[in-house]
Amino acid sequence: METFFTFLEKRVDDSSSLLCVGLDPHISELKEPSPASVLDFCLNLIRETAPYAAAFKPNAAFFEVFGAEGWTALKQVIETVQEESNRQGSMIPVILDAKRGDIASTAEAYAKSAFEGLGAHAITLNPYLGKDSIDPFIQNPEKGAFLLCKTSNAGSMDLQNLLVLPVGAESSAPLYIYVAHLARQWNEKNNVGIVVGATHPAIMSNIRAAAPDLWFLSPGVGAQGADLETALKFGLRKDGKGMLVNVSRSIARAENPGLAAAELRDEILNVKRELNR
Amino acid sequence: METFFTFLEKRVDDSSSLLCVGLDPHISELKEPSPASVLDFCLNLIRETAPYAAAFKPNAAFFEVFGAEGWTALKQVIETVQEESNRQGSMIPVILDAKRGDIASTAEAYAKSAFEGLGAHAITLNPYLGKDSIDPFIQNPEKGAFLLCKTSNAGSMDLQNLLVLPVGAESSAPLYIYVAHLARQWNEKNNVGIVVGATHPAIMSNIRAAAPDLWFLSPGVGAQGADLETALKFGLRKDGKGMLVNVSRSIARAENPGLAAAELRDEILNVKRELNR
Repeated sequence: METFFTFLEKRVDDSSSLLCVGLDPHISELKEPSPASVLDFCLNLIRETAPYAAAFKPNAAFFEVFGAEGWTALKQVIETVQEESNRQGSMIPVILDAKRGDIASTAEAYAKSAFEGLGAHAITLNPYLGKDSIDPFIQNPEKGAFLLCKTSNAGSMDLQNLLVLPVGAESSAPLYIYVAHLARQWNEKNNVGIVVGATHPAIMSNIRAAAPDLWFLSPGVGAQGADLETALKFGLRKDGKGMLVNVSRSIARAENPGLAAAELRDEILNVKRELNR
Repeated sequence: METFFTFLEKRVDDSSSLLCVGLDPHISELKEPSPASVLDFCLNLIRETAPYAAAFKPNAAFFEVFGAEGWTALKQVIETVQEESNRQGSMIPVILDAKRGDIASTAEAYAKSAFEGLGAHAITLNPYLGKDSIDPFIQNPEKGAFLLCKTSNAGSMDLQNLLVLPVGAESSAPLYIYVAHLARQWNEKNNVGIVVGATHPAIMSNIRAAAPDLWFLSPGVGAQGADLETALKFGLRKDGKGMLVNVSRSIARAENPGLAAAELRDEILNVKRELNR
């Protein structure tokens, strides 16, 4: 049976890549802010970088800000990834970075929107509302969810680093470790991963120890300052997979985004070779 | 200077109401699922219940599920509240129930979408990403944010009830109490409240003790089974305000939603009188 992660791993093999290309048409990236320029920005990025992308990750916020027209653009972006996939003969997963989270009946509507309405293959989710807020997204093993575990921003300290004392536990652990454990428990269908920012390498290493098998979606390399080699060293699974390195700005702002993506793909391959994974 | 909560309190006084009417056009509530029937459902509810509503709370998920057309319907819903407000000569706040949360630069786009694009006055936010994910929403004191603290669903146990040990603290406390403390700290401009489900009355009482001054947005009364009197007893501030009782299904499904809203408004007034607040 195909699951989200067998699907992703097939693409990782086809493209020899762990690079996730972030599609973040932030207003500051656009010459003139409009739904048309958002679409133009993304379509250009997709066409140039598709051969080197293990996945694409559009962030919903940058489309939502343009209302209904932005939503139409987001759908077109996802359709364009599909077209590029067909051209290449290898399906490229789309991870909708939406960070949603709501009670069960409402989460169902969000899941329908992301997977049926937009055609995304996976979504990022906030775990604060617990299991019933995640369930509607992971019923179908072919669709995946990455739960926010340790995010790349400074504010991630405020809650995620708190020491928690679960009932019956012998010792306390940071909340992000607890979330990693929950994600492992909830990953019954090989379709639950976690978001682990590359900006905290020591923490990434601890989370990898707590969840040796889970897929990480890791932002932070590039404009946010995280080092690629360190991130791979601490984040990769023993099988040399298990980690999508998300890069947005440093590809989008490159003179030649296709070349920048190819170089990143190859840099990841080189580091993996050095690490012998 | 007007702040979100002085604005809300003016409406609470004008309408003698603490009732927040939830606009949740869940597919199961519609005869035929379509953006037109979503709009029809909401416009009908707004027109019938506006005299008794301290606020309206549309949930973004039920619009998002219809893509671009759903987004247009959401904008029209918020405009209709504005029109009804003008007709009554008393502005009714719209709280967008979106439960968003993303790193700072992305949160800016969500804030622009909710407040400028859609014209909402406040939004619900997930605190898991910390202060920098909240800041863009609370810079303008006239716009408000309700942080998820203790939600009404069963899954709220999974993370929100964990005992946390903040650095330097003498004793542990549940995560929801920690979030209530953070919300108090972040409420520098009288525009930060918290979501506290009425389905956990003992917990609501503890959160009120930890945050005697904050506004609560409290779902759970009606279809979710929470008792109105108990909720008001444990949730109201000493001044008889500080709590919006959100009701969705039991108003929407009533034969006469306007009458159901009027009765709830009056029931709240009666309980307040008995409690002497």
